[in-house]
Amino acid sequence: MTPRIDRDRLLGSLRDLAAIGATAGGGVTRLALSDEDRAGRDLLRGWLEEAGLAVRVDDFGNMIGRRKGSTSEPSLLLASHCDTVWQGGKYDGAYGVLGALEVVRTLNDAGNTTRRPVEVVNWTNEEGVRFEPAMLCSGAVTGRFDKSYVYDRTDRDGRRFGDELQRIGYAGEERHRPGPASAYLELHIEQGPVLEDADLPLGVVEGIVGITWIDVTLTGRADHAGPSPMPLRHDALAAAARLISGVEELSRGVSGAVGTVGRLGVEPNAINTIPGRVVMSVDLRHPDRHALESLVAGLEKRAWQIEQVTGVEIALNRFWTSEQTLFDPAVVGAVDAACESLGLGHQHLWSGAGHDAKYAQDAWPSAMIFVRSRGGVSHCEEEESAPDDLEAGVNVLLRATLDLANR
Amino acid sequence: MTPRIDRDRLLGSLRDLAAIGATAGGGVTRLALSDEDRAGRDLLRGWLEEAGLAVRVDDFGNMIGRRKGSTSEPSLLLASHCDTVWQGGKYDGAYGVLGALEVVRTLNDAGNTTRRPVEVVNWTNEEGVRFEPAMLCSGAVTGRFDKSYVYDRTDRDGRRFGDELQRIGYAGEERHRPGPASAYLELHIEQGPVLEDADLPLGVVEGIVGITWIDVTLTGRADHAGPSPMPLRHDALAAAARLISGVEELSRGVSGAVGTVGRLGVEPNAINTIPGRVVMSVDLRHPDRHALESLVAGLEKRAWQIEQVTGVEIALNRFWTSEQTLFDPAVVGAVDAACESLGLGHQHLWSGAGHDAKYAQDAWPSAMIFVRSRGGVSHCEEEESAPDDLEAGVNVLLRATLDLANR
Repeated sequence: MTPRIDRDRLLGSLRDLAAIGATAGGGVTRLALSDEDRAGRDLLRGWLEEAGLAVRVDDFGNMIGRRKGSTSEPSLLLASHCDTVWQGGKYDGAYGVLGALEVVRTLNDAGNTTRRPVEVVNWTNEEGVRFEPAMLCSGAVTGRFDKSYVYDRTDRDGRRFGDELQRIGYAGEERHRPGPASAYLELHIEQGPVLEDADLPLGVVEGIVGITWIDVTLTGRADHAGPSPMPLRHDALAAAARLISGVEELSRGVSGAVGTVGRLGVEPNAINTIPGRVVMSVDLRHPDRHALESLVAGLEKRAWQIEQVTGVEIALNRFWTSEQTLFDPAVVGAVDAACESLGLGHQHLWSGAGHDAKYAQDAWPSAMIFVRSRGGVSHCEEEESAPDDLEAGVNVLLRATLDLANR
Repeated sequence: MTPRIDRDRLLGSLRDLAAIGATAGGGVTRLALSDEDRAGRDLLRGWLEEAGLAVRVDDFGNMIGRRKGSTSEPSLLLASHCDTVWQGGKYDGAYGVLGALEVVRTLNDAGNTTRRPVEVVNWTNEEGVRFEPAMLCSGAVTGRFDKSYVYDRTDRDGRRFGDELQRIGYAGEERHRPGPASAYLELHIEQGPVLEDADLPLGVVEGIVGITWIDVTLTGRADHAGPSPMPLRHDALAAAARLISGVEELSRGVSGAVGTVGRLGVEPNAINTIPGRVVMSVDLRHPDRHALESLVAGLEKRAWQIEQVTGVEIALNRFWTSEQTLFDPAVVGAVDAACESLGLGHQHLWSGAGHDAKYAQDAWPSAMIFVRSRGGVSHCEEEESAPDDLEAGVNVLLRATLDLANR
């Protein structure tokens, strides 16, 4: 019989780690390389060592706990992160790391030795809130970022990543980086409402959507709100409204697409003046690269049409793009099979947010498991998942581990 | 022979006042009760005193320069305002005050004493940009607003009108308010394209359209821009966009109507977060009271419809309404006769913007003279009127003064 994880032990560890950096509102502030991060790391290190793992730290502060296999074949990596955003939730990141710890503890209790070693990984600075950009150290290990680039990242107070890493005592060695690995698995809360809406506890993540960010500047003519007849106006906000509705329509019209205008400023922003200038952001996401490009083309066409009708000049500046990531079909398949064999409700979905698995996929066949989030909210103190769902997610991680680590 | 005004002296004074708060783009920022407003007031006070007027300041900071008549009959008031919007024009307001000053200077040069006294008035806070609502202090003097209401108005930084009035040294006495008066004349740039369209320098204003201001608060749910599928969102800005387009459509659908969303703020205003809250203003205007009310009803209906479709809660707060104003036929007739006798091209029209004359009409028989605006633009740095037109407008004011102050 396949072993099952110990729910109370899992929830207890989640509670204990959440106490470090706990906020009054029930959340956690444990920014990367802060004193709270160090305390959390020390707690995790103790747990990993108690579980009999050989713990090492690499030159980016990534922590790796290695459980020996019956062979020295490349490992299976079970990874996530313990840093949080400011006033974030208890599970975003921590759940994946402590879920992996619980898998190892369960294998220990069952006296089960996998063929491949299993490595539990705690990535440094996933959130990118203290040191931009996000997923900094999974990106560094898998070749996206230079070491000097990483070390020179500074926080708002000007403190360097490299210095803070030394300060908290987690500057390790390059030879200690994770891997070599045959596969990579990341368990995470969904951070979205899809599973709750579908009334399912689990998501089999097929990949991470492509994201592009565009700044839009609309230049009309500021005028007194009273005496300018409607047909003679060049109202930058009225034109912006058309484009915002255009973003919504375009995104609703393409399956899997999302489009958001999150930031908008009006000039001169006075009650009785026709807006002369609007600057706003557009965030477009889609799992498919071509679909994302056609969303951008659709936006450009809308902007041009609105320009013709309103006489408001519209300039688009596409300043950042993160290409989509397609996870490895075999690893995704192992997650799917684990859900099936456990008889747990699940569906395939795409991640709309970035995760370390995005960069992991550059180096190793990867996949993710999502667990339902209450209300779909995250990056806030109200972030919550049901104990049943948290338990189910780790059982899936365990089952997939028994599959992938024995291949 | 009737005297004519000194064009160069008029333009020189306009230039000198426009230098206070001058912007790089050729406009003026001289917000009510700001340091710039104080400097402008000090300059004006000097000019009024040089012209031999007795200058007084009332309890709202309204400045009155009184030129004696041959009798102590009620005065003729020549009024406008010296405050501007943010990055406004050189003439909006200032032209009417300095035009009145030029009339007095011309009467002085001609040794002409009118039967009635003539009072030059600079109203405080006409624009309503720093302290809402507009025309605050003409409204206070003529009984629309309580003194405590006026004093408790606050700007965006929470500073009180009463405190700022003290701070700039223009808190005067109640007994110094303008009047008693037999008539009220206000000279102003048109702030619209009607006279330019008609190729005429001057407008005889019959009245002021009805105006209503509504604050709209849209409450949705802030969420990550990535993982929330379009149908599950409650995007406050996407809902606001629909309402902005609704305001535009409603106003275009009713002859004589204008509608403007001039002010809008987004929370949390981050590129990758779905807006949770939007607060925006709606400005609706129409010459007919019933048509204005049906515009408001149309807006309420749109808001309700958008609530149903988007799940975003929309709250409307109609916090200010200015009913249409019909000016006094005898004073309008005096303006008309002045244009005729000077052989200057003119037409009758309605003002789409509010002016202090609106509240003046509550207390005194009133009228306005409009002067052509280049491109019809105002409340912006590009606001411009031709020197010939500026000269013509003040000559009309002079001629009407000689008529009304000698009745």
